[in-house]
Amino acid sequence: MPVNLNLPEALAVEGVELVTLAAGLKAAGKEDLVVARLAQGATCAGVFTQNAFCAAPVIVAKEHLANSGGAIRALMINSGNANAGTGEPGLRAARLHCKALAEALSLPADAILPFSTGVIGQLLPDEKMLAGIKQASQSLKTDDAMSIDAWHAAARGIMTTDTQPKMTSQHVMVDGKKVTITGMAKGAGMIQPDMATMLSYVFTDAALAQSDLQQLLHDAVGISFNAITVDSDTSTNDACVLVASGAAMPDATLSADNAAWPAFTQALNRVFVDLAQAIIRDAEGASKFISVQVSGGNSVSECRLVAYAIANSPLVKTAMFASDANVGRLLMAIGKAGIEDLDPSRVSVSLGDVLAFEAAGIAPGYTEELGAAVMAQDEISVMVDLGRGAAQAIVYTSDLSHDYVSINADYRS
Amino acid sequence: MPVNLNLPEALAVEGVELVTLAAGLKAAGKEDLVVARLAQGATCAGVFTQNAFCAAPVIVAKEHLANSGGAIRALMINSGNANAGTGEPGLRAARLHCKALAEALSLPADAILPFSTGVIGQLLPDEKMLAGIKQASQSLKTDDAMSIDAWHAAARGIMTTDTQPKMTSQHVMVDGKKVTITGMAKGAGMIQPDMATMLSYVFTDAALAQSDLQQLLHDAVGISFNAITVDSDTSTNDACVLVASGAAMPDATLSADNAAWPAFTQALNRVFVDLAQAIIRDAEGASKFISVQVSGGNSVSECRLVAYAIANSPLVKTAMFASDANVGRLLMAIGKAGIEDLDPSRVSVSLGDVLAFEAAGIAPGYTEELGAAVMAQDEISVMVDLGRGAAQAIVYTSDLSHDYVSINADYRS
Repeated sequence: MPVNLNLPEALAVEGVELVTLAAGLKAAGKEDLVVARLAQGATCAGVFTQNAFCAAPVIVAKEHLANSGGAIRALMINSGNANAGTGEPGLRAARLHCKALAEALSLPADAILPFSTGVIGQLLPDEKMLAGIKQASQSLKTDDAMSIDAWHAAARGIMTTDTQPKMTSQHVMVDGKKVTITGMAKGAGMIQPDMATMLSYVFTDAALAQSDLQQLLHDAVGISFNAITVDSDTSTNDACVLVASGAAMPDATLSADNAAWPAFTQALNRVFVDLAQAIIRDAEGASKFISVQVSGGNSVSECRLVAYAIANSPLVKTAMFASDANVGRLLMAIGKAGIEDLDPSRVSVSLGDVLAFEAAGIAPGYTEELGAAVMAQDEISVMVDLGRGAAQAIVYTSDLSHDYVSINADYRS
Repeated sequence: MPVNLNLPEALAVEGVELVTLAAGLKAAGKEDLVVARLAQGATCAGVFTQNAFCAAPVIVAKEHLANSGGAIRALMINSGNANAGTGEPGLRAARLHCKALAEALSLPADAILPFSTGVIGQLLPDEKMLAGIKQASQSLKTDDAMSIDAWHAAARGIMTTDTQPKMTSQHVMVDGKKVTITGMAKGAGMIQPDMATMLSYVFTDAALAQSDLQQLLHDAVGISFNAITVDSDTSTNDACVLVASGAAMPDATLSADNAAWPAFTQALNRVFVDLAQAIIRDAEGASKFISVQVSGGNSVSECRLVAYAIANSPLVKTAMFASDANVGRLLMAIGKAGIEDLDPSRVSVSLGDVLAFEAAGIAPGYTEELGAAVMAQDEISVMVDLGRGAAQAIVYTSDLSHDYVSINADYRS
């Protein structure tokens, strides 16, 4: 069961058409292919996994993004098969499917970005994909591909082990016009994104230059998808894409000199953070949503190192699952993070509002009962002060439960 | 249930007297205090945890080892309470208990090494410890503290979540005399030692200079306790001690110019590797014993990085639990290890004797059935060749099971 997964309502974004269908990659006729057609003049920015075994679609998407200068006209996303660890045949398949969609939509192949998610190490079947692409391009002409139902179907169509679709919107007024930002994301395991996330697509009908878009994406990912972990594992297929269709601003381009820029970036960041947190709220087997805030560091990177050491510790995560205020395991995790010259006597640890550890010992007044009351909640803040500087960082994570083991032991069987 | 935990039979070591009793630190009258008295002239070497929150007994043991130049006369080990995260009061307690044992045995306090293992963040109770120390020093005078039963009791007395005691011996002939090496170890979780292990004590009746002893210990730990992981978590209390009582060689000292040196070091290393593997065989919730061998690297450290990335991946470990030949998760883990300029097309992965992945794709002839046959065993070798050098490394680990979650969710409750 997801932990308090209540996102602001999603709105359709002008200049984006979506179709979703079952191409037969997943079992039992589940939806597994999404095509998003973007308006002429749309700009697109992307960040991708740093995993050395990055998947065929990641390689092709990076090529197409570079070749087109961000002038992307369609996204093609399949779930159920990651097309990763598939070598030359996998690359050939990704290119073939882009070419098929490009022809059907009368676009250059470089204007298509492909994405895959699902089982690693199995070839993506051409026959099912080509049939699905044909059907999708026909539906784009006939269906109501701009309805909110089309958006909800797409958010469902990109899921794998997610129990719920994740989609949310914000809107901002720019020069008297309403601009919408809507993002969707999938992912519940193999989550410690490294400069990217599982799959996430954020669309706005604002008009933006591609260079601004890439910078906005980079900044937003830094505080959202690059600040979460379920299991310390970095996917081969991580990708996050930001699209500006421009449909709400036919005659202008939004840039940093516009008075609405701060409100726009704030709304955009909110969509990213909400989606990243939604991934943790729906993490495999999650029963707790945990924020790990580390302050008082010499640098953001050492704060992140400590936050991830806590967030990825199986012993911390099993204690969280048990609602056990096991301060000792938090100390263990801080201590193993490899921070040079850390002075344990200056470190303090709080559970929620309750100070549990300071001056190298259990804090005066701390009791197991006070800790237990914090741990009984389904949203838990762990706050660590390293007592040596002004830098801080935050990482969001889930607990390690029996359901996590069941989900991942049964995934392919 | 431990995985094939069958160690060579343990033998008592001359020059070492052991008593074990229940001081009341663990529930239900379980044995939780071990005292080992060492013969006059014994030498002792130790390695300790690198965790920044190292426990009070670790701080005191390092001081005493340095002050005494390795002329240690007694080890005092309690289980059930780690005396870690306890600040000044914890240090004061460790020193007080050493002083009490030193007085009872007419030794200087610096000749005592204290060790604690168990729950972190609770003060070690003076009253129970002092009563236990008094009883132990009396038993040393009256009991048969050199019997093999005394050794078995000690191996049980240091246990926490271990399901079985871990003790083993080797013997070697040195100058016509039989020299014995006997080691014991405890630990089943919070296991990714960093220059040390949970608690391990290895004794020999050979006579050795302290400098040789420290070097032998360092080398043996490198291929044993520093090559295992259960859960990536490094304990605050890790310690590994090597004692040479000299009782089998009253008139000589064994050193590198003795013809028996190679046989002795080989036997010593065997004891360490057997104990380190025993920890993994009895790891919390373990149903598999997994060896991860990484070869073809540019350096040992990059091979270890890849081996640990695999061995610590929750997704690899849950696949192992499910006996699922999930080659994709192995690729993911190799790819996330952060090896610079890794060429995926030169990497190969084998499950046991079965080549599963090469040339950036699933290996010709590999089938799920072949992989499944390897994964059905309870001892699994994962072999990775990075295809870029001659270095190699091996890491031993266990799987991630429901029992691991149960054990760690229930540990304090």
